[in-house]
Amino acid sequence: MNAKVERTEPASKSRIAIGDGGWTLSIDGPAPTQERWAETIFALANGAIGVRASIDELGGGDGSTFLTAAYEVSPIVYHERFRGFAETTDTRVPVAEAIGLDVAIGGSAIDFTTASAERTRRTLDLRSGVLTRETRWRLADGRRIAVRAERLVPLDGTTGYARRIAVSPIGFAAAIALTPRLLPAPTAAGQADDPRLGVNLHAHGFAPFGELRPEMVVEKLRGSGIAVAATQAIRGETQAQVVADGSISIEIFTGYAVVADATDPNHLSDIAAATAADLADTGFDALVDRQRAALDAFWRNAVVEIEGDEAAQGCETAATLRLNLFHLFQSAGRDGQGSAAAKGLTGQGYEGHYFWDTEVFMLPVLAVSAPEIARAMLAYRYATLDAAIANARALNHDQGALYAWRTIAGRECSAHYPSGSAEYHINAAIAYAIGFYDKATGDTGFLVEMGAEMLVQTARLWIALGAHEARTGQFCIRGVTGPDEYTALIDNNWYTNRMAQAHLRLAAEVVDRVAAAAPDAWANTAARIGYTPAEATAWTAAADAMRLPYDEKLRIDAQDDSFLDKPRWDLAGTPADKFPLLLHYHPMTLYRHQVAKQADLVLGLVLGGDGIDRERKRRAYDHYDSVTAHDSTLSACSFSILASDVGRSDEAWRHFRSTAFVDVDDLHHNTDHGVHMAAMAGSWLAFAWGFGGFRLREGAPSFAPTLPAAWRGYGFAMLWRGSRLRIDVDAGGATYRNLDGPAVSFAHRDQNITLAPGETRRLGA
Amino acid sequence: MNAKVERTEPASKSRIAIGDGGWTLSIDGPAPTQERWAETIFALANGAIGVRASIDELGGGDGSTFLTAAYEVSPIVYHERFRGFAETTDTRVPVAEAIGLDVAIGGSAIDFTTASAERTRRTLDLRSGVLTRETRWRLADGRRIAVRAERLVPLDGTTGYARRIAVSPIGFAAAIALTPRLLPAPTAAGQADDPRLGVNLHAHGFAPFGELRPEMVVEKLRGSGIAVAATQAIRGETQAQVVADGSISIEIFTGYAVVADATDPNHLSDIAAATAADLADTGFDALVDRQRAALDAFWRNAVVEIEGDEAAQGCETAATLRLNLFHLFQSAGRDGQGSAAAKGLTGQGYEGHYFWDTEVFMLPVLAVSAPEIARAMLAYRYATLDAAIANARALNHDQGALYAWRTIAGRECSAHYPSGSAEYHINAAIAYAIGFYDKATGDTGFLVEMGAEMLVQTARLWIALGAHEARTGQFCIRGVTGPDEYTALIDNNWYTNRMAQAHLRLAAEVVDRVAAAAPDAWANTAARIGYTPAEATAWTAAADAMRLPYDEKLRIDAQDDSFLDKPRWDLAGTPADKFPLLLHYHPMTLYRHQVAKQADLVLGLVLGGDGIDRERKRRAYDHYDSVTAHDSTLSACSFSILASDVGRSDEAWRHFRSTAFVDVDDLHHNTDHGVHMAAMAGSWLAFAWGFGGFRLREGAPSFAPTLPAAWRGYGFAMLWRGSRLRIDVDAGGATYRNLDGPAVSFAHRDQNITLAPGETRRLGA
Repeated sequence: MNAKVERTEPASKSRIAIGDGGWTLSIDGPAPTQERWAETIFALANGAIGVRASIDELGGGDGSTFLTAAYEVSPIVYHERFRGFAETTDTRVPVAEAIGLDVAIGGSAIDFTTASAERTRRTLDLRSGVLTRETRWRLADGRRIAVRAERLVPLDGTTGYARRIAVSPIGFAAAIALTPRLLPAPTAAGQADDPRLGVNLHAHGFAPFGELRPEMVVEKLRGSGIAVAATQAIRGETQAQVVADGSISIEIFTGYAVVADATDPNHLSDIAAATAADLADTGFDALVDRQRAALDAFWRNAVVEIEGDEAAQGCETAATLRLNLFHLFQSAGRDGQGSAAAKGLTGQGYEGHYFWDTEVFMLPVLAVSAPEIARAMLAYRYATLDAAIANARALNHDQGALYAWRTIAGRECSAHYPSGSAEYHINAAIAYAIGFYDKATGDTGFLVEMGAEMLVQTARLWIALGAHEARTGQFCIRGVTGPDEYTALIDNNWYTNRMAQAHLRLAAEVVDRVAAAAPDAWANTAARIGYTPAEATAWTAAADAMRLPYDEKLRIDAQDDSFLDKPRWDLAGTPADKFPLLLHYHPMTLYRHQVAKQADLVLGLVLGGDGIDRERKRRAYDHYDSVTAHDSTLSACSFSILASDVGRSDEAWRHFRSTAFVDVDDLHHNTDHGVHMAAMAGSWLAFAWGFGGFRLREGAPSFAPTLPAAWRGYGFAMLWRGSRLRIDVDAGGATYRNLDGPAVSFAHRDQNITLAPGETRRLGA
Repeated sequence: MNAKVERTEPASKSRIAIGDGGWTLSIDGPAPTQERWAETIFALANGAIGVRASIDELGGGDGSTFLTAAYEVSPIVYHERFRGFAETTDTRVPVAEAIGLDVAIGGSAIDFTTASAERTRRTLDLRSGVLTRETRWRLADGRRIAVRAERLVPLDGTTGYARRIAVSPIGFAAAIALTPRLLPAPTAAGQADDPRLGVNLHAHGFAPFGELRPEMVVEKLRGSGIAVAATQAIRGETQAQVVADGSISIEIFTGYAVVADATDPNHLSDIAAATAADLADTGFDALVDRQRAALDAFWRNAVVEIEGDEAAQGCETAATLRLNLFHLFQSAGRDGQGSAAAKGLTGQGYEGHYFWDTEVFMLPVLAVSAPEIARAMLAYRYATLDAAIANARALNHDQGALYAWRTIAGRECSAHYPSGSAEYHINAAIAYAIGFYDKATGDTGFLVEMGAEMLVQTARLWIALGAHEARTGQFCIRGVTGPDEYTALIDNNWYTNRMAQAHLRLAAEVVDRVAAAAPDAWANTAARIGYTPAEATAWTAAADAMRLPYDEKLRIDAQDDSFLDKPRWDLAGTPADKFPLLLHYHPMTLYRHQVAKQADLVLGLVLGGDGIDRERKRRAYDHYDSVTAHDSTLSACSFSILASDVGRSDEAWRHFRSTAFVDVDDLHHNTDHGVHMAAMAGSWLAFAWGFGGFRLREGAPSFAPTLPAAWRGYGFAMLWRGSRLRIDVDAGGATYRNLDGPAVSFAHRDQNITLAPGETRRLGA
């Protein structure tokens, strides 16, 4: 067992207590050093707004609340600037702060910074979506009060949230007054030495917009011109004479409005006020009922059941996977104007940007559990297609579209192109997601409306980028970076080329299909974007000739043309405190060595391993496992899935736990800045794709379940073309049930199965 | 003839008139659009101070004066910062401005911005080093005055300069008063889109230091803590009643002082005042005499004689080569605390940094014409060896030293590592210069004192960087950038590996030699730096196993492992206004193509082509010529030399002219920002190494002269181990003369020759 294994092994999970059969999670405190972690873990969101689990009486600190549509645009400063470098960056900044609550006793405001929390417990109920916090404060004068605060963010996408807060004097009677605070936006996080966090906004940020009013904050971002208003509505009496051990309780409803290019602050105020008023009209209990209904619908598809022994903590693992799915579900955009960011809406990490992992890790999970959200995420990419075309031109490609490596509004925001703009594989990730969504839903309307056009524009880019090389005739893609950011600007990254190959074939196939299904609509689109059938011929030719480097000596697929020739990094000899390597070594040092930050070829073999025999995959798994630092939270999931595939079950288990507990156990020591959304989604992939052996094979689901030694059984489900398919696995085999919907066909290992509506089939291990 | 050829073909040279048999150069004006070019071309310097040829009456504009020892240190801001990135940059900024002269007539100050220069002529005399300017002004009131201003910067390295200025009223009598101006330092050039110019000092720069005094400017740089004082001494009456067509004349002596970590402004003032007073005590005429003597000594070694027909402008070409040598001679540091910057001391381009071309292009020219300056330049590198060791550690190398790619004080100042820190070949450049200087001078004392230690520390770096690869046993150097910055972070750059090979062998050889010559001194050094003989064994083994990529199909040496496989850039089809490519294409686009900014493999074949047959060199020349954009002024010189070598005489001529006239004809459109010092030095290399066929062969000079078709003959000279060897070439052959010094041995083609003191030998073509 080498250093990197020690490092990613889950630590104690004692910080979270599981209840209610794996449906509630609780964190006890106080524990100041884990406070920011707890705020992240129990953040609530709905795709439009995210609110960290800050303690109301203490306020939101350096930012508790984020809006998908509220981001700053600020210049990127380069000391040495070259042509085509990204000029501006989008940064999702915290908005006006409404989380604070002032409490006065006998007319004197309590200073909670001088009070001590004797105990506090936060509990998140995954079925109601309500976060409940109970804190017992000892005040500076020795008296004690108890606070119970409930909170939810309506999953319908309202830009607001609701709270119910009760305050009780313990053993004394008092006049108590509760006053919700409303403050302007705090300053965003500054640039640190850690490239994963923060940004210098260069004097940009929020400024007051319109006249100042006490009950309303209206601010405008200087760079982007996006304006935000915030206000609150209250139900219940905010002042009362409370008997000893009695309580005063109010409901607070916070409404936000966000408008691009706003000119009228009053209009903005009106929208925020209406949002708060609508929430207040509904009331906290009715909002909880709605929330529970929305979550019930989700959990019907997003099934996680684990039967394990005590040591394997089956219940805790199931609860953690559900928490991960909950974060994914609540964080993804619903309106086609935003997607799912690397940190969701739970913190300031990575500037709130969207990356490729949205499509590779998150979207496939939602496509089979909440397909309408997956569609909305793709619609966001369609909405930014023009920006992707502009980005391709900025990088000197005369045709096609290249999606930005990191962005909010669609523009490229990467300031370090070797591990940014050079990652052209993002185009293939989006194509992969379109293909996966198409197969899972059969939503041809989406292809007609958006998908085919996106596939054409992104497929064109591979033709602009790559070339059939004179000497070999192979289609080669040079000077790009694959998922492994410890290896940059190399030639013929296997993952990229394999995904591009699938992308080119998908584009050719979808264009044919859409032309047949909606000839008039397609004729219009084709004319508008100048598509000619000769293009599809070129795509197929490039796909057929795609170079996929293979090492004859090691008999494994090669990460790129030179990776396997480089001297290996001494991972075992690297001290644990030198990980992640990127914080301790110059990029060039990493680039020169055979060391991977994360799954690259291994992910390629997960997504594009069809037709590659298991022995070859196993050799590759063993080799790449030995040269991977797992410094990205994206890594463990892919390794776990391939380990399951090739029979490395101990490794599969270890990597599964590394991805499942990444935030719950803060394995990468930066959950403070937000959850790792892709790893959270990836934990379900390691579960259903890894242990369950789910793959797409010729467009249909295929399963090859294995049972981790620590478990007696597990179950998961997926929505597939309108059918809800449930799979339960135990030592004796797997049981497949078509819970509702039309007949569904799939493969169990090499056996083709069709389940009629309502049918169950038990198949041996 | 393709676009790039058109583009670099010399334009009209009509802007400079040649006089006095090629020893004076004159620029006539006024021509406002070429004013900044003229200021650069006729800038004067002495290694410690540089003064642009600004017009005194108009003042220095945005900066006329630079001091080698005065530079700011400011933070480098990165939007995405990674470990090991350079943290600060040194920037040579213009210092206090003393060039201005106020002229009052009849008590009224003349506003020269409202006057018009009817004619102006600047003349630089290369033998006296004096710049004379005569301007005839028509004032706003219609009256005319004539100004004659003479200027020199003493070549002894004094931080000051001297002027004599006479003002004559034309056709009228008047009371005239002359008042030299003294102003604080102007603001440095700001960052532009052109990465070759300017820098954001981030609020750093000069601030007043000590109390303000009218006759003295004392300022301190906020970041570096370096302080500068400036003052003036005057000889002659500054006011007089002048008769019509008479004149008033004064001498102005400007003294600077520069001190690092200065605490006492008065001390600084005293030094500046003493410098000005010393100059004044000497007086202008005596300074001219001294200057002439210093230049006579230089021109005895730095011979350029050309006999050409009218069309080939032999005299103009000789004058231009002499101007280039003059700039090189006057700009290089003499005190071991500075070297020769990319732009000398003539402008703000490239922040005043030193690069590798100092050692590869400039130093070899000085080593055979002013070897004491070459030694001082190497002493500067020795003075920054600790910084180079620190730089190696910052880039994670556990042994050795890596000189900064661009620097003033020794710290790495490159903010774009793919075309900065990745250019490890700078270590080999410095080793090459040490080797060249050693062979040209036999200065073993230098090796004992400094050279051997530098060679050991820099040789170690190759061992830390490269590795004998398991599969082939070859010593490979991966992830570096060669001289061609359109190709970055590649494996086994031929130039780098070839130069490293020579470097490793030189280090092993010098260590042996120094150990024998000065055993005690070397024992001390070896102990101090932990040298063991096993290291030299490893160096030799690495050199012997060095990978030098060769393309079997094209039968040429390959620029690196992948260059020749890349798709070729369509140079002929690229519009002329898209050059230089770096200003129009993203670096990644360039990196992906087989296109070179400048000579890379070609330079390798010039410096390391020994043992490679001429046919193979010719094939390489033809191939690399077809893929080189010549977007660097360093390119033409190397191409010219190799073209001479392989018999491509038309090309040799064309590239010679491109390098010789680079600044005189402003071929790269940025002479405004300073001269291209390496190209200027390179013009002499193209002359003596190219046409003269000079090379080092087994440590001794070797010549293979050819005669350009446009010339009837030419001559050059070099100081070689104390002998002054003169070579004159004409259609019939070459005449070698040992002008003074001991016997000298060399080769003429394959013939070994030894010339006794004073001996002449005529050898056939």
